[in-house]
Amino acid sequence: MNRQIRLAARPVGFPKESDFEMVEIPVAEPSEGEVLTRTLFLSLDPYMRGRMNDTRSYSPPVPIGGVMVGRTVSEVVTSRDPGFTAGDVVLGFGNWQDYALMTGKTLRKLDPASAPVTTALGVVGMPGQSAYVGLLDIGQPQPTETVVVSAASGAVGSLVGQIAKIKGCRVVGIAGGDAKCRYVVDELGFDACIDHRAADFGAALARACPEGVDINFENVGGAVLQAVWPLLNDFARVVICGLIAHYNDATPAPILDLRAVLIKRFTLRGFIITDHNVRLDDFQRDVSAWLREGRIKYREDIVDGLEHAPEAFIGLLHGRNFGKLIVRVAL
Amino acid sequence: MNRQIRLAARPVGFPKESDFEMVEIPVAEPSEGEVLTRTLFLSLDPYMRGRMNDTRSYSPPVPIGGVMVGRTVSEVVTSRDPGFTAGDVVLGFGNWQDYALMTGKTLRKLDPASAPVTTALGVVGMPGQSAYVGLLDIGQPQPTETVVVSAASGAVGSLVGQIAKIKGCRVVGIAGGDAKCRYVVDELGFDACIDHRAADFGAALARACPEGVDINFENVGGAVLQAVWPLLNDFARVVICGLIAHYNDATPAPILDLRAVLIKRFTLRGFIITDHNVRLDDFQRDVSAWLREGRIKYREDIVDGLEHAPEAFIGLLHGRNFGKLIVRVAL
Repeated sequence: MNRQIRLAARPVGFPKESDFEMVEIPVAEPSEGEVLTRTLFLSLDPYMRGRMNDTRSYSPPVPIGGVMVGRTVSEVVTSRDPGFTAGDVVLGFGNWQDYALMTGKTLRKLDPASAPVTTALGVVGMPGQSAYVGLLDIGQPQPTETVVVSAASGAVGSLVGQIAKIKGCRVVGIAGGDAKCRYVVDELGFDACIDHRAADFGAALARACPEGVDINFENVGGAVLQAVWPLLNDFARVVICGLIAHYNDATPAPILDLRAVLIKRFTLRGFIITDHNVRLDDFQRDVSAWLREGRIKYREDIVDGLEHAPEAFIGLLHGRNFGKLIVRVAL
Repeated sequence: MNRQIRLAARPVGFPKESDFEMVEIPVAEPSEGEVLTRTLFLSLDPYMRGRMNDTRSYSPPVPIGGVMVGRTVSEVVTSRDPGFTAGDVVLGFGNWQDYALMTGKTLRKLDPASAPVTTALGVVGMPGQSAYVGLLDIGQPQPTETVVVSAASGAVGSLVGQIAKIKGCRVVGIAGGDAKCRYVVDELGFDACIDHRAADFGAALARACPEGVDINFENVGGAVLQAVWPLLNDFARVVICGLIAHYNDATPAPILDLRAVLIKRFTLRGFIITDHNVRLDDFQRDVSAWLREGRIKYREDIVDGLEHAPEAFIGLLHGRNFGKLIVRVAL
């Protein structure tokens, strides 16, 4: 049998567990050109909150009763695509379920001997590529510039800061709580990390950025962006990669003095990583090399059991994960 | 004697006439390398409001008691720079006064036979260059795209729209009142122009942009920007050239849903034209050619008498001018 987690109701504000439902259906048989896969790992990412809304976006919403979407690392069970055989480990959109049918051309084979397969969902996957493209192509960091990155211990933020260090920048993270902040400085090598929950957050951030801020890599929005705003230097780049504070309508739009965009000649730019696949090879080459050389580290937060995916995803939206959130589906 | 208009007090909100004072002092004598000029025309521009504040900006503020700054078209009276002789007509920063001492290297000679000299303050001057660089370099218009430009009958907006038409765009202006809107459509050739004072402004703007908006060339901010925001298409460019609604602290920051920056991959960018002098020759060549070919038109709003400059400048901030605002100083 195949367990699926489906969207039961469109969330109002933060999702509740009752917005999801688990159903069991028979495992399907692959047609010609299809591959039946068993899900090993499911990636949980903030963008999924947007897919739960019935609003215009860059991707269609998950319909009510539809299986929640998500990237997976899976094992091929039965293949009717000549490019795959049983036992192959593949990256694809297997979604929130035990088994998936996918066409071969949507899959990429992984080599478990070369790297832990979960990294294909994180540091060498979509979050890593977001960090790479957002920082390098949109942020365009120059040596000695100051980069601020929010959600600094997360899948994207942790890599943004480490790449910025490699590029010679001063890097200040923003994260929630002492443990994450210590990790960001002690393990990842950021120059500083400020707890956005602290009472003196804004003042502490300003003290950590004595030369102002040249690049703000934004994963959060809300009060975090509002605190960075007055610190931005002339010609600052604000890279909008994520706005998790706003995904649940829990945070009003931050009040940003637009005059600063003009007077200080800011560039704000939002991006969606799937528009930037032209850079996939560069990203994989560089990040794989940095990993081999020990110049970047990553951290995974692995939750066991598909049935815990809704709870884990809700936790992600509250910042309760610590590192790239992944569900181990095949136990 | 030389009449000067000086900054008497830093304005709170909209400037009042009492924030300026006129004084008369003897005309100064030029030192070696200097040129004594008599002001023919003084340009009044929204950026001057920023110079009246004692806040960090891209240029230092005018000190209390200092002469208000401004570009001028002037006639050389006495020259101690071998590059200039009495009678030459020059463009420079002569400021709000009858006579100015300027060093020769800050001046550019104008040829009154080739074009009306006032155009050096408008369509072929700083406002024109702002339109050219902001639209072409920052906005990057493509044929058939929709461009919305606010303050559409003004010195910058009127040229933005006409260049966008030359580039094959659909162009929708925003202006204050029927007369300006009619001028923008009937004389300048925009596809539509919407009165931002009309009760149904937002709905009318949406109707005028059936394919959405690809470029918003923003001169105003406030409610005008807020009305354009939901109409912006994927990959829209928001060019922040001016934010006159905010210069007098009369308008709160508009509430802009930042999620649209991410989901629709907007680019917002502010610019100050003096950073873009590398494009000065291209601008002058292209706009001069378009003027000769009759492909662009311009309108000047000329006020007689230096003593009326404060009143005219205050009117500019309220949108009471109609076309490029210039003071004829030498009557």
